[in-house]
Amino acid sequence: MHPTNDPNLNSFIDVDPESHFPIQNLPYGVCRPKGGAQPFICTAIGEYVLNLAELESAGVFDGPELDGKQVFQDLTLNNFMALGRAAWSEARGVISSLLDAEEPALRDNDSLRNAVLVPRKDVEMMLPVDIGDYTDFYSSEQHAFNVGSMFRDPDNALNPNWKHLPVGYHGRASSIVVSGTDLHRPRGQILPGEGEDPVFSESRLLDFELEVGFLTGTGNPLGQPIPVEKARDHIFGLVLVNDWSARDIQKWEYVPLGPFLAKNWATSISPWIVTLDALEPFRIPGPEQSPEPLPYLEIDEDCAYDINLEVFLQGEKMNQPEKISTSNYRHLYWNMCQQLAHQTVTGCNVQPGDLYASGTISGPEPENYGSMLELSWKGEKPLEFKNGETRAFLEDGDRITMTGYAEGEGYRVGFGEVEGKILPAR
Amino acid sequence: MHPTNDPNLNSFIDVDPESHFPIQNLPYGVCRPKGGAQPFICTAIGEYVLNLAELESAGVFDGPELDGKQVFQDLTLNNFMALGRAAWSEARGVISSLLDAEEPALRDNDSLRNAVLVPRKDVEMMLPVDIGDYTDFYSSEQHAFNVGSMFRDPDNALNPNWKHLPVGYHGRASSIVVSGTDLHRPRGQILPGEGEDPVFSESRLLDFELEVGFLTGTGNPLGQPIPVEKARDHIFGLVLVNDWSARDIQKWEYVPLGPFLAKNWATSISPWIVTLDALEPFRIPGPEQSPEPLPYLEIDEDCAYDINLEVFLQGEKMNQPEKISTSNYRHLYWNMCQQLAHQTVTGCNVQPGDLYASGTISGPEPENYGSMLELSWKGEKPLEFKNGETRAFLEDGDRITMTGYAEGEGYRVGFGEVEGKILPAR
Repeated sequence: MHPTNDPNLNSFIDVDPESHFPIQNLPYGVCRPKGGAQPFICTAIGEYVLNLAELESAGVFDGPELDGKQVFQDLTLNNFMALGRAAWSEARGVISSLLDAEEPALRDNDSLRNAVLVPRKDVEMMLPVDIGDYTDFYSSEQHAFNVGSMFRDPDNALNPNWKHLPVGYHGRASSIVVSGTDLHRPRGQILPGEGEDPVFSESRLLDFELEVGFLTGTGNPLGQPIPVEKARDHIFGLVLVNDWSARDIQKWEYVPLGPFLAKNWATSISPWIVTLDALEPFRIPGPEQSPEPLPYLEIDEDCAYDINLEVFLQGEKMNQPEKISTSNYRHLYWNMCQQLAHQTVTGCNVQPGDLYASGTISGPEPENYGSMLELSWKGEKPLEFKNGETRAFLEDGDRITMTGYAEGEGYRVGFGEVEGKILPAR
Repeated sequence: MHPTNDPNLNSFIDVDPESHFPIQNLPYGVCRPKGGAQPFICTAIGEYVLNLAELESAGVFDGPELDGKQVFQDLTLNNFMALGRAAWSEARGVISSLLDAEEPALRDNDSLRNAVLVPRKDVEMMLPVDIGDYTDFYSSEQHAFNVGSMFRDPDNALNPNWKHLPVGYHGRASSIVVSGTDLHRPRGQILPGEGEDPVFSESRLLDFELEVGFLTGTGNPLGQPIPVEKARDHIFGLVLVNDWSARDIQKWEYVPLGPFLAKNWATSISPWIVTLDALEPFRIPGPEQSPEPLPYLEIDEDCAYDINLEVFLQGEKMNQPEKISTSNYRHLYWNMCQQLAHQTVTGCNVQPGDLYASGTISGPEPENYGSMLELSWKGEKPLEFKNGETRAFLEDGDRITMTGYAEGEGYRVGFGEVEGKILPAR
């Protein structure tokens, strides 16, 4: 098998050392040439996308797992994801080999190269998967602590269950949108003050949440949990997630059954799915867990990943995006293997393309917090920007951009961006 | 248009007056002949199913809304549901007319009749829709009062938001199963007692919830709410729902983000979708609402329905199912129009085939309660059965059957059943 994670591997395509898309990455996406031609499944390499549908038609995926499967002719990645880890590795090996500077097959085939390589600036990225179900966890201890401190009691900030299980809830799949989708400020029921009657109003406490989500590949039959040590075999890859939240709507509606309308008006994801194979060199031990988790959540192997995360805000009157948060996926208390084992332990079935988001990822210092709620501490400490503006929560015209990458030796394995702008309420 | 709701309408197929499937009903489903032949979309008439795929191939759906659409060749109803109310009415008119005792087209065509009518006992019913998203509301005041009284305070049983908005949460779509699917008792985290450490255990407080759900037909674009007065145009029909619940798992996990694993191991629905068109004669005013709802939830038209509901339990050692609850869909405080308007008011998009369940429907008297939790009052008053057995919660081998029907003059418009048996934990 081609050594796809070798830091010394180079492509015949020039890739900037700070690019998110070197040959070691090879994320999956779906794009459409600007101007409306047919969408296709692709990977990214430097400033280009590589058309995998066209390559499949050219017969390059002729290994035992992929031959004849025609999964790259689809308009979503679900069928490829359903094939399982052996097929994913085979595809990665083929693509890596084709792009390798030492390999002539694509490098020296002008007509094929011209047919399959398209400048990224000439395509528009689309939602890469048909997401059947969406779960949102709440797995960052600092975030849960911050929220608990603000709204309950700093001395008992975490609920009693928090260190025993990865708290989560089911979200809305239909309103998951791809990066670049701008969103109207939602209206809903809000309580102006304690004891007052609710009013119908634009949300005044609009927020983002910095998250990373994993997408499942192969599923499990109903009634058969996925053991924690098998979880990674079911996980295809990761995306950045912005879990947009209307805090004022949330506060009024969420007792006792959890967040509902505050979240279901939109969730944005990055268009590129970075595979666990590409992230393998960045797998690290997670934080120590105390109390020791119950056996169904106990895992000997590392299942945390070192992924740098950043959030930028640009208001309409600002000349450029300004960084407002720096965090890392490693700050999660509960890892993705534990999340998936927990999700399925009662027998819940997982399907190819389901999304499981981490919950807001806040690190230990105030500059590592992953939401406006925390960064501005309920609005008590508004953020200041270079042009003198301040923000407690998001204003109309604000654009939020999140980015993430793992740092290798001389290269980055990155997600690109997930961004979206808040438009005025309709 | 054929007078499809006329109580005097008769089919040339004999239908018992207590049958759920007279010519006034014509629910939609998907079935497969026992023995494994190809599934097909069908309706029910008395003891028969009528093969709509075959009828479509025979060219009977030749009206302006359906001609050439070929929606009955699918294996789910989603594409038919997406066509909208005009198409639904057209289909209903055609089917009603074909089955009418006065109409010779099918009655007198032996070969077509033999091709399209199959005894119901010879088919197995399947999940009729591909359910993209599933919401569960909490709209019965008596149920919310009972639960609030048990776990909080009888003097403040309803949370402050309850009478201002239809409280709901997103559920798990992947684990929705059709009636007849037996289910293994789930295992999960449970707190043995206050202040103790959680244990991993079989659920010991297994429960059902008697609900009715509506399925959306035509959807709305993201960001554009469905006004309450337009809600019925988007609703295709109703199913019975058993929202299986593990109360001990729920109690430990649900703070602060709501029910998760306690519910996601299975939700059962009846195989027949009874359309709003068929239920139109049973549309009635709902309960008075005080305080007056905010304008986006205010509706002048009736949007409640008079549908009798019953629950039966049969343990392995019982000779027959015994009725344990009698309720009615009219007991809901919040109606389906308000539920759909609320679901979408922040801009959430609805798609054809989404399921929106009512929440447990409990009526005013103890025998009208819709869950074991309420019927046995937290287990304090176990139910007694004819053979001397008692039940506080569900035991292995217990079969729960729910049924529902609207009572017309000399006919019933019914749902058939949703049933399922609890198998021992794996």
